[in-house]
Amino acid sequence: MISDRLFTIREEGDSLLILDQTLLPHQYATRHLNALADAAHAIRAMQVRGAPLIGITAAYGVALALKEGASNKALDHALQTLAATRPTAVNLQWALARMEAVLRPLPVAKRRAAAWAEARSIAQEDVAANRRIGEHGLALLQHAAAQHTPVRVMTHCNAGWLATAGWGTALAPVYAARAAGLPVHVWVSETRPRNQGLLTAWELHAAGMPHTLFADNAAGLLMQRGEVDLVIVGADRIAANGDVANKIGTYLKALAAREHNVPFYVAAPLSSIDFACADGLRIPIEERDGSEVRHVGGLDRHGARAAVALAADTTAVANPAFDITPARLITGIITQHGVCAAGKLRSGEQTSPPSPGKGMGGRQ
Amino acid sequence: MISDRLFTIREEGDSLLILDQTLLPHQYATRHLNALADAAHAIRAMQVRGAPLIGITAAYGVALALKEGASNKALDHALQTLAATRPTAVNLQWALARMEAVLRPLPVAKRRAAAWAEARSIAQEDVAANRRIGEHGLALLQHAAAQHTPVRVMTHCNAGWLATAGWGTALAPVYAARAAGLPVHVWVSETRPRNQGLLTAWELHAAGMPHTLFADNAAGLLMQRGEVDLVIVGADRIAANGDVANKIGTYLKALAAREHNVPFYVAAPLSSIDFACADGLRIPIEERDGSEVRHVGGLDRHGARAAVALAADTTAVANPAFDITPARLITGIITQHGVCAAGKLRSGEQTSPPSPGKGMGGRQ
Repeated sequence: MISDRLFTIREEGDSLLILDQTLLPHQYATRHLNALADAAHAIRAMQVRGAPLIGITAAYGVALALKEGASNKALDHALQTLAATRPTAVNLQWALARMEAVLRPLPVAKRRAAAWAEARSIAQEDVAANRRIGEHGLALLQHAAAQHTPVRVMTHCNAGWLATAGWGTALAPVYAARAAGLPVHVWVSETRPRNQGLLTAWELHAAGMPHTLFADNAAGLLMQRGEVDLVIVGADRIAANGDVANKIGTYLKALAAREHNVPFYVAAPLSSIDFACADGLRIPIEERDGSEVRHVGGLDRHGARAAVALAADTTAVANPAFDITPARLITGIITQHGVCAAGKLRSGEQTSPPSPGKGMGGRQ
Repeated sequence: MISDRLFTIREEGDSLLILDQTLLPHQYATRHLNALADAAHAIRAMQVRGAPLIGITAAYGVALALKEGASNKALDHALQTLAATRPTAVNLQWALARMEAVLRPLPVAKRRAAAWAEARSIAQEDVAANRRIGEHGLALLQHAAAQHTPVRVMTHCNAGWLATAGWGTALAPVYAARAAGLPVHVWVSETRPRNQGLLTAWELHAAGMPHTLFADNAAGLLMQRGEVDLVIVGADRIAANGDVANKIGTYLKALAAREHNVPFYVAAPLSSIDFACADGLRIPIEERDGSEVRHVGGLDRHGARAAVALAADTTAVANPAFDITPARLITGIITQHGVCAAGKLRSGEQTSPPSPGKGMGGRQ
C-alpha cells in the first residue's frame, strides 16, 4: 500500500478490497473479493496482475476459500482452483505451495486464522523485498547518473506498485531515486496487446515523475539514438539458468539493448525464481484470447469507457502473453539480496554484482 | 489496380479517385482529389500511404495543380507543397524531381498534358516493377519451401497493393506464390501505432490467403519458436550503403531475425533507393503527432466507426514513424532488377543474389 487510496489489495474484515486494474487508467474503482471464485476471477481476468500481486492474491484467495470450512477437501479445491488461473507467473505456485505447507499440518480448526496470517506475511514480505530491490537498483541508477542525468530508464509493461503489494519491482529503483533526489526520466512502452504501459504512466503521473510513452515498435530506435541509459523490467518467472519469462516484447527490447550496449536488468523477488525449472524453454507460455489483439478499450469522446474492434472477429490471431529472454542478454537480476549475474543464480546464494554500465560485450 | 474495386488511385476525367485508407479495414470508401491541396492532404493525412503510392500521388498532384495554369510559379508552388507533406519516403522526392525534369523545359501550354502523361507512366512503371519484384521474391519463397511448407513469411506494416499502384512490394512475392500454387502463410504484425497490419490482413483476406495477426511484441517469440521462415518488409528509403528506413518496428524484427538465422529481405523499387544519401543516419525520420499513440480508432459495438482515448492528452509521447535497419542485418534487397546484397547497391548495377536461407552467420 502506498497510501489509503493507492493500494492494490488490502484486507477488509473477512474479505479483500482490490483495485480493479482493468479499469485503469481511465477509472479508479475497487472491488470486494468475498470468496474463492472472486479471487480466481480477479486473477484470471487480470483485475489484479503482476507476478508478485498474483501470488499475494492467490494466498489471500486460499484464506477466502477456508471461510466456510477448512477441511482437506476445501483446501485441495482452493489450491487447485487458484493454480489453474494463470500458468506463467511462478509466484502463484510459490505462494500456494507456501500456504499449503503451513496449513496442511494444522488441525482444521486452526487453518482459517493461519491462512489469513500467512497471506498477510506474504504481502508484507513482498513490500519489504521490493524496498530492498529499490535500494539495490538505486545504486545502478546512481552509477548511470555519472554518464547522463536525468538517468533515462526504459521499462516494459507494468512492474510498479500496481504489480505488487507495494513499491513495485522494476519501478522500485525509480521510486528510490526520487526519494534520494536523483533525477530520472522513464521511457514507458505501451505494451500491446493489453497496454499495461498505461498503468505505468498512470503510476508515474500520480507520483509526479517525468515519463514518456512510446509504441513498443520504437524501442530499437530510441536505443539506436542513445536515448536510453538502462532498461529495467520485471519477471513472471526466472528459470534456474537465469532465462527470464516476462511480458511479451521483453525479448525484443533485450536484443536491442545488447546491440546498443544498454545494460538490461530484471528486477524480481526471489519468489519469482523457479529453481525447479532448468531453463526458459521449460516455462509454460500463456496463450491468451485473440480478442485482446482484435479489440482495445479506452474512453470515447464523451469520456465514457468504451471498446473498439480493430480487426474482424474472424481474423486469426496469435496472442502469446510472455516471451523468454535468455540469460546471456541480461546484465543482472536485481533481487532483495542484491544484483546477481543472470547465469549465476543459486538458491539464496549472493553473488557479486556485475559492473553496471559496461553492457554485454563480445559482439560487433 | 487489382480490379475495378481494388485500386489505390486512378484517373477520373481531370481528377483522381483514391481509396481512403484511413477508413480501412472498417469501411471501403473512395475520395475525389480535384486540386493540389487535396493531393497534399491525402498524403499528409495518410489517406494514401506507402512509399511508392506516396510518390505516385505526388506526381498526379502536380498534374492536378497545373489544371488552373502551368506557369513556373504554379509548378514551383506544386513541387514545394507536395515535397513538404512527408519527409521520409524518398519516392516522394524522386517522383517530384522526375515531374520537374519533364515539365520545366516544356512550353507552359504543353505542361498540363505532359504532367498527366508522366504521372501515368510513373504509376504504370510501379505496377511493372512490383510484378518483377514478385517474380524475384517468388524464387526465394520456392527455395524456403524446400525446408517448410507452407512457407511462413513475416511482414511488417503494409507493403501490399495498398501501398503501391498494384501488387505491392513486400507482398508481391506472396501474390506471385499464390499464382504459382506455392502454399504461403503470412504472419501479419499489428504495426502500432497506426495499425497498418490491419490493412495487410484486409488485403490478404480479400485475396483468400492464410494469415495470422500478432501484436508487434510477439515477433521475437515467433522466431524463437522457429515459426518464421523468412521476413519480407518494404522500405520508405534505402541509403546508398544499404541501410533501410522503414516503418517503426522494422529494426526490432531485423534484430530478432538475425538472432534466429531467419533471412530478412527488403522489397522495394529502385525509386526507393536514395543514392545521394550515404547512410541511414542521414535519413530524416518523421516524428508524428502523439495522438496516434494516445488514441486508436476502430468500430464500436454497433459497428460504427469510433475512436477511443487510451492515454490522457497530457501524457508525453514519442512517436517516430520510421526506424533505420542497418545493411548488415539485411539478407538481401529485392528490386525489379533482382536480389542484391544490401551492402552492394549501385545505381542500376545488378549483383548476384545472396544464397537465401543461410541467415547472417557470425554470431552465437
